[in-house]
Amino acid sequence: MTEWKGIAASSGYAMGRAFLLQDDKVGIPERILAEEEIEPELQRLEETVDSAVEQLEAIQESSRDKLGEEQLEIFSFHIALLQGSDYVKSMAANIKAEALNAEAAVRQATGKFVEMFENIDNEYMRERAADFRDVGSRLLKILSGIPDVAWDESGEKLILVAHELTPSDTAQLSRDKVSGFVTNVGGKTSHTAIMARSMEIPAVVGLNGILESVRPGDFVIIDGNEGTVWINPSAESISHYQDKQKQFNVQQLELRTLIDAPSVTADGRRIELAANIGNPHDAHHARQIGAEGIGLYRTEFLYMDREDLPSEEEQFRAYREVAEAFGMESPIVIRTLDIGGDKELPYLGLPKEMNPFLGYRAIRICLDRTDIFKVQLRAILRASVHGNIKLMFPMISTLHELRTAKQVLEEAKQELDEANIPFNRELEVGMMIEIPSSAIIADQLAKEVNFFSIGTNDLIQYTLAVDRMNESVSYLYEPFEPAVLRLIHMVVQAAHKEGKWVGMCGEMAGDLTAIPILVGMGLDELSMSASSILPARSLIRRSNVQEWQRMTEKVLQMDTAQEIKAYMGLAFPEIHN
Amino acid sequence: MTEWKGIAASSGYAMGRAFLLQDDKVGIPERILAEEEIEPELQRLEETVDSAVEQLEAIQESSRDKLGEEQLEIFSFHIALLQGSDYVKSMAANIKAEALNAEAAVRQATGKFVEMFENIDNEYMRERAADFRDVGSRLLKILSGIPDVAWDESGEKLILVAHELTPSDTAQLSRDKVSGFVTNVGGKTSHTAIMARSMEIPAVVGLNGILESVRPGDFVIIDGNEGTVWINPSAESISHYQDKQKQFNVQQLELRTLIDAPSVTADGRRIELAANIGNPHDAHHARQIGAEGIGLYRTEFLYMDREDLPSEEEQFRAYREVAEAFGMESPIVIRTLDIGGDKELPYLGLPKEMNPFLGYRAIRICLDRTDIFKVQLRAILRASVHGNIKLMFPMISTLHELRTAKQVLEEAKQELDEANIPFNRELEVGMMIEIPSSAIIADQLAKEVNFFSIGTNDLIQYTLAVDRMNESVSYLYEPFEPAVLRLIHMVVQAAHKEGKWVGMCGEMAGDLTAIPILVGMGLDELSMSASSILPARSLIRRSNVQEWQRMTEKVLQMDTAQEIKAYMGLAFPEIHN
Repeated sequence: MTEWKGIAASSGYAMGRAFLLQDDKVGIPERILAEEEIEPELQRLEETVDSAVEQLEAIQESSRDKLGEEQLEIFSFHIALLQGSDYVKSMAANIKAEALNAEAAVRQATGKFVEMFENIDNEYMRERAADFRDVGSRLLKILSGIPDVAWDESGEKLILVAHELTPSDTAQLSRDKVSGFVTNVGGKTSHTAIMARSMEIPAVVGLNGILESVRPGDFVIIDGNEGTVWINPSAESISHYQDKQKQFNVQQLELRTLIDAPSVTADGRRIELAANIGNPHDAHHARQIGAEGIGLYRTEFLYMDREDLPSEEEQFRAYREVAEAFGMESPIVIRTLDIGGDKELPYLGLPKEMNPFLGYRAIRICLDRTDIFKVQLRAILRASVHGNIKLMFPMISTLHELRTAKQVLEEAKQELDEANIPFNRELEVGMMIEIPSSAIIADQLAKEVNFFSIGTNDLIQYTLAVDRMNESVSYLYEPFEPAVLRLIHMVVQAAHKEGKWVGMCGEMAGDLTAIPILVGMGLDELSMSASSILPARSLIRRSNVQEWQRMTEKVLQMDTAQEIKAYMGLAFPEIHN
Repeated sequence: MTEWKGIAASSGYAMGRAFLLQDDKVGIPERILAEEEIEPELQRLEETVDSAVEQLEAIQESSRDKLGEEQLEIFSFHIALLQGSDYVKSMAANIKAEALNAEAAVRQATGKFVEMFENIDNEYMRERAADFRDVGSRLLKILSGIPDVAWDESGEKLILVAHELTPSDTAQLSRDKVSGFVTNVGGKTSHTAIMARSMEIPAVVGLNGILESVRPGDFVIIDGNEGTVWINPSAESISHYQDKQKQFNVQQLELRTLIDAPSVTADGRRIELAANIGNPHDAHHARQIGAEGIGLYRTEFLYMDREDLPSEEEQFRAYREVAEAFGMESPIVIRTLDIGGDKELPYLGLPKEMNPFLGYRAIRICLDRTDIFKVQLRAILRASVHGNIKLMFPMISTLHELRTAKQVLEEAKQELDEANIPFNRELEVGMMIEIPSSAIIADQLAKEVNFFSIGTNDLIQYTLAVDRMNESVSYLYEPFEPAVLRLIHMVVQAAHKEGKWVGMCGEMAGDLTAIPILVGMGLDELSMSASSILPARSLIRRSNVQEWQRMTEKVLQMDTAQEIKAYMGLAFPEIHN
């Protein structure tokens, strides 16, 4: 029996025999073409690319019900890579300039792009290397006449062991055939991990060397909660994990019963549990799995992966669709454009910056480019008659900025009035608290907004001066730092003193260890990934807010994150076991 | 009469006739060499480079008394550029590979490096382009047989008008011949500006087009306080500025009388006015112009511009020299290594980062590389018996980090004990407050240090999430933001509650508009550029701390920086006129 520790990528337990997905050792016949072969080979490459696009469109179509919009977009990205990108141009150039055959041309171009992306000092970009590998392997299979799906067809459910699963491998997994998977590489934010969570298949990634150590047919247990994998465990271990699995499955079923239940503590305190979304499709999904509203609609996705700015009409339709998905009552918080930082819009031609997280982004761009900003504000205002829409400004750092943003909003309203276009005159206007200065002057800001939403991802980064994407210092990124908890507490108190509501839409809001403290401090709304809503609701319904308040008072007296986490671990053993 | 507005680079008033320093329109004879000419031309280039190095060493030697260490280092940098750098290699390559004559080779290599540095998105690096221009122009003059100094020798004091002054032009200016200068380009942190301030020659820079508009002999007035320049002003203006000039000169003389005076308000509150320094030479200079101690010794300069780490012995000698410059009483605060961010140490091979200001720097590196850190700690401990040395950690963000740093210090003490090397066992240990988290938990930190020093440059950057070097957002960098003032106030109160002293060593500490608020809040020490000490002392001696406290209470109620600055402007018209 051997035990492996990796990165828990998708929760749950799975066990079964190992199926090894070996790297495609497709024999690639490399050769130099004769002059007269070049033109036909270019033709062959073109046909191969077309076939690959057709395959991808077919997978996309057939997975539409299994996967969310975010996952389906991966295939759109692959299709885009095949349609007129430098990647395909580079293949054609290899054929033309170096007289390589198509197989060698694809392999060389793929290798070049994979290497380029792997060397970028940014986790997200590095993981894009997998997309090139995936598309390259698809092209090679087509060139070699190997069918796309080479998956085991025996009836037994298996544990898939691979070096890396490409996004299209993952999308084609079926829960009937695969009970879980483990891979040598990958991280929590890799496509594979995102897809596994969305499909609810337990997975552990980053187990360097596991593919080389496991033999086909070995018995494997996956603990996707802890990131542990057991190879050929004892009968005792199997029985122990079978119990855990049953318990987990029961919990999952119990959670499903809470989809329409209210998020109210045992002693009657109601917390609104909303979802963070990036597009209208996510809104429908969030509604289905229990979201009471949208606490953060990241509108920047409307602006990305395209050639120019979205029109007012296009934006209006997207905002209206989200509002209509939830009806007239549930709140929909639309955040205005938060571009810049690590989110680029190539067509705006923004300057390269030394420290983009401290640079020209979000409201700073919008107050500078009011031409772009007003289009969005008008679209939101127009949508506001179709639901309970609220508007939220990101990255406000001073009262002066808030006032300026509200002034631009007034101008947008006036423009609509002049054109006799209706909008909700009572539209609530709020702001993100994600810059330390805004948390510190929350008492002053609270007088001039209807609500706050605390964006912990950025707030923690700035408060501790740490870029959490930077592996050398990411250990300092810590939501439970006393300084962070104090800021959150100050913001809640400042908002309530002015009778305003305050939510949170950073990742911390969906963390079951943090929720007792957040509710104990008095947060009114928590907005999170849709998949976190039911576990959060279950925790809240089982709890007593007065007890949480007493715990929070104690936590606020502690002086290190280590101490706070140890205390919370003891208080909530069921979350941490 | 025409009025120009530029960047005030060096304070004071100057007037006189314009002397135009035209760009060296040296006729550069470009030609392609015959094969047999190449070797002799390489020889000619080598001799030219040697002559340039000799000239630079001579200038450096003759300016040693006029200029500070920082200014003299510019010439060391120029000499380094001429000794085996890629720049000179590139000239030789132009001769060898392209058969260019030396003049053309120098011009081409210079153009290439100037362009390269001008395109870097970093103000400091951009200004290094001027160094290449300077060295290139020196080489061309030598090649053309033009003598180095071509300065006007009439008796009249002149106003120098130039496109740009190279550092060596500036170093050779004499106060007997030049009463001030104005240039088309340059910024507050350009070498030229630094040198002008050090030589106390009034200067305005960044006056794009002024060289092309002024005729030789035009009458020019420079207001180096406001950044205004008048060409051919009315008699009335001349008389007005003559009065201002007299008044300024009287003030400067009056300030000189305060060199040994105590920094005490009219009602008896003493504030320690200390200097920020980068090396032992600065310490002697600071002492001469009235510093009561060193509030910030930036030890990273010991580590920069060299090939490897400084030894313990080398560091010990530097720290001891600073301590001895001030005797056994005056406090000397030595800050441990603050490298990273925008300060690189190529020989450490630090990784490239997306957001270096939020990255691996200062104490984060030291706690990771305790091998490097302990060498410095031992050197400081050893120096501690030679003066009133205090030790300060930079970039502390959590209590856990502070405790870890103190633990490493204990280990260093133990190592010295084991070797029977003496050190001050009562050495005070403090920390910078420059990360928002540390300001927010200052009450907890204060229990475990002897003092704080608030580093406003970084504190403001992180609190407002703005990189002040980034021109797109630098308008947000604002010391008078209510959030910033509240944090400072919190820190002072937290320190005093624990009976600890608190200083400030960011640029804000030397700002005469900020000092009344800082003293009003109760700061015990202000550490600034040496040249700001006497004006600060004068302001403090003329003031009443109780009045400043009342003003500070009002300021802390205001809600925008604009309002606060307007109020301070009205309260202290003499600082702002």
